[in-house]
Amino acid sequence: MAEPLKLGIAGLGTVGASVFTLIQQQSSLLEQRCNRPVAITAVSARDKNKDRGLALQNIRWFDDPLNLAHDPETDVVIELIGGSSGTAKTLVETALNAGKDVVTANKALLAEHGTALAFLAEQNARVLAYEAAVAGGIPIIKGLREGLAANNITSVYGILNGTCNYILTEMRQTGRAFEDVLKEAQEKGYAEADPSFDVDGYDTGHKLAILSALAFGTEIVFDEKNVRGIRNVSPLDLEFANELGYRLKLLGIARKTEDGIAQSVEPCLVPQSSPIAAIDGVLNAVNLEGDFVGPTLFVGYGAGGAPTASAVVADIVDIARGTRFPMLGIPAEQLTPARATPPEKHFGGYYLRLNVVDVPGVLADITAILKDEDVSVESVLQRGRDPGQGVPLIMILHDSAAGQVFSAVKKISALDSVLERPMLMRIEKV
Amino acid sequence: MAEPLKLGIAGLGTVGASVFTLIQQQSSLLEQRCNRPVAITAVSARDKNKDRGLALQNIRWFDDPLNLAHDPETDVVIELIGGSSGTAKTLVETALNAGKDVVTANKALLAEHGTALAFLAEQNARVLAYEAAVAGGIPIIKGLREGLAANNITSVYGILNGTCNYILTEMRQTGRAFEDVLKEAQEKGYAEADPSFDVDGYDTGHKLAILSALAFGTEIVFDEKNVRGIRNVSPLDLEFANELGYRLKLLGIARKTEDGIAQSVEPCLVPQSSPIAAIDGVLNAVNLEGDFVGPTLFVGYGAGGAPTASAVVADIVDIARGTRFPMLGIPAEQLTPARATPPEKHFGGYYLRLNVVDVPGVLADITAILKDEDVSVESVLQRGRDPGQGVPLIMILHDSAAGQVFSAVKKISALDSVLERPMLMRIEKV
Repeated sequence: MAEPLKLGIAGLGTVGASVFTLIQQQSSLLEQRCNRPVAITAVSARDKNKDRGLALQNIRWFDDPLNLAHDPETDVVIELIGGSSGTAKTLVETALNAGKDVVTANKALLAEHGTALAFLAEQNARVLAYEAAVAGGIPIIKGLREGLAANNITSVYGILNGTCNYILTEMRQTGRAFEDVLKEAQEKGYAEADPSFDVDGYDTGHKLAILSALAFGTEIVFDEKNVRGIRNVSPLDLEFANELGYRLKLLGIARKTEDGIAQSVEPCLVPQSSPIAAIDGVLNAVNLEGDFVGPTLFVGYGAGGAPTASAVVADIVDIARGTRFPMLGIPAEQLTPARATPPEKHFGGYYLRLNVVDVPGVLADITAILKDEDVSVESVLQRGRDPGQGVPLIMILHDSAAGQVFSAVKKISALDSVLERPMLMRIEKV
Repeated sequence: MAEPLKLGIAGLGTVGASVFTLIQQQSSLLEQRCNRPVAITAVSARDKNKDRGLALQNIRWFDDPLNLAHDPETDVVIELIGGSSGTAKTLVETALNAGKDVVTANKALLAEHGTALAFLAEQNARVLAYEAAVAGGIPIIKGLREGLAANNITSVYGILNGTCNYILTEMRQTGRAFEDVLKEAQEKGYAEADPSFDVDGYDTGHKLAILSALAFGTEIVFDEKNVRGIRNVSPLDLEFANELGYRLKLLGIARKTEDGIAQSVEPCLVPQSSPIAAIDGVLNAVNLEGDFVGPTLFVGYGAGGAPTASAVVADIVDIARGTRFPMLGIPAEQLTPARATPPEKHFGGYYLRLNVVDVPGVLADITAILKDEDVSVESVLQRGRDPGQGVPLIMILHDSAAGQVFSAVKKISALDSVLERPMLMRIEKV
């Protein structure tokens, strides 16, 4: 029997505690699958005296997580502290430099500093594994890095944030407003006290940045500019989407184009018949498309202690078995800069919701603007009549150049008869 | 730069030709991802002079594939001949014994002889990889063996045969009969001239046997007894299923139970709202459920040259990178015998379609039998009236013990008023 693989866990929050529990509970299963024992030899967290319900008595405790990086009894440092800078970053760097393999669930750290960390891991000939950083329990990093390794990846997109998907699902099913459902989600523990990171799309953006780099062999770039969340989605949008044969999902999308990589996070309409449309509640779903394999979809829980622990320990099993990979699937010095395709270059269908004054001639003004920009209308839906007042007007636009759609919408929103900022969403024929 | 990995391909049918094309076309991508070149050094197929559109001129040709096993210029033998015995089996055995790693897409071979081959690979310290043998391009073997390695797997089920799923989808969408759609599928090349292997469920059964062994750490057992195909599915069943809020899918299902492993292939009803219900046409979908990760679903093309080649080459990339795994995820001598849970032990809902004479008292007779067996009825649907003639009667049965359902259905089919053999299908609340 080979030597045990010795683990040092930094951070005992929800995920850390679940990783601890999993490794203790499945120790014989893990030994069988790794062909060697896997043992937690040290932990570090903020408060030693807090009761976490974990059997910590025979495990060495470090108040300072950085001590794990220098601990001769630790082979692998499991970083579950979180945050894109500070202790988490220092720990990962120090551990790699000290010759430890590192497993992390920290998407913010990788989205912001991943490329540098890929170089650092390579310089030290160490593994930096991060299955848990994207889509929780779904083995999507492995799917992309290994399962689809024979393909040129053409696109990666998906539902990457369970909180947003839960809120959109509830809004659709109950007709309630965003704020109302968000409040309930917070009470149930599905949303954070400060929900901005989730509902404004940054969490999805971080995960997408990592997936995109791995898919296309580029440096990791997280650009806030192309990130839009779900705060402006109205129950009307969900209702109209449904009526028109679509579902509304917050998607992170990265596509290879002639101009580079088009990467964005935004609420989109997807056909009701597509498998991704059926992904409701807190589930995540990621679609990978390759030139030989075609489209593949991966679905599962994207958050929560147990699913995330499943992913963290999958990385540990790989390391225990001796599997080694460059962090982004190819040697770091071969990563190319990620050239961003301008959003105006997108070509596709759109959903446009306007709040217009119900007076004669409004539709003529709007359609004239669209015609001038060479954008053609597939269908129009107007609900209710309220002469002289605002009524919703919904249009589905045929596949068009985004630049022209943006320009038309800008002109439309300047019309006196258009009362609110228009709601424009991409239709993704996924 | 490391030495190239040298490949010998046996079989140049649809899959073999696609593997050849992929490796030639993506050679620089593969070199980048493997950190070493991957090169085809020899091939073997039946007819050297057949024009396959492949650039074979600089590749060594062997008329006898067994020569690949002894070829000093071949590191990995790619077995794409097919068939559960004969040349394919001899080649895999000979290659392993000669110290070659082996990649195969041969589900029949593994379903029938997989356990012995797992031992043989282990004795020779060689890799026997088979991602392409189950669900084509979907990296489900990797997902199970590595992605979910931290979990006790509780169930594996899915749509594992694209031909059947295509036929069922067409029948549902057009209302046409099985034979009619099968004929069309044959003309389109979606079904074989002899369709039995697909439509009678054996292909699904072979794949399920492999998945089940990998999931539960058992020997591979393929048992025809619990395999049922789709020949008896009538357009009526698809119509009624739809009306009752379900979709009809041919599922391979393996579940861990108190009594062992319950493994079966049969047409089942799944709720329309479940993601697997949305998987139409030739797509495959596999659901893996683990104690920590919960349910995960993998979707993609399960057949065809290009998707299958994607999976074959994923295995080659693993080997080129130095990744080594026991064939069934754990050392062969630790595999346990697969104890089959008797089908009578299943507990769940059922769909029952009867053809009954439209006379008073029939429903009373039937419901009395069900009551005697402690099986309760959730809903009844009768379409049309035709006094004295046969009419369809559909019942949805509440969750019940299968043994009692089987016993009730046996008694019901013996009633004079029941004209045909009843159609009984499991409802899977997936």
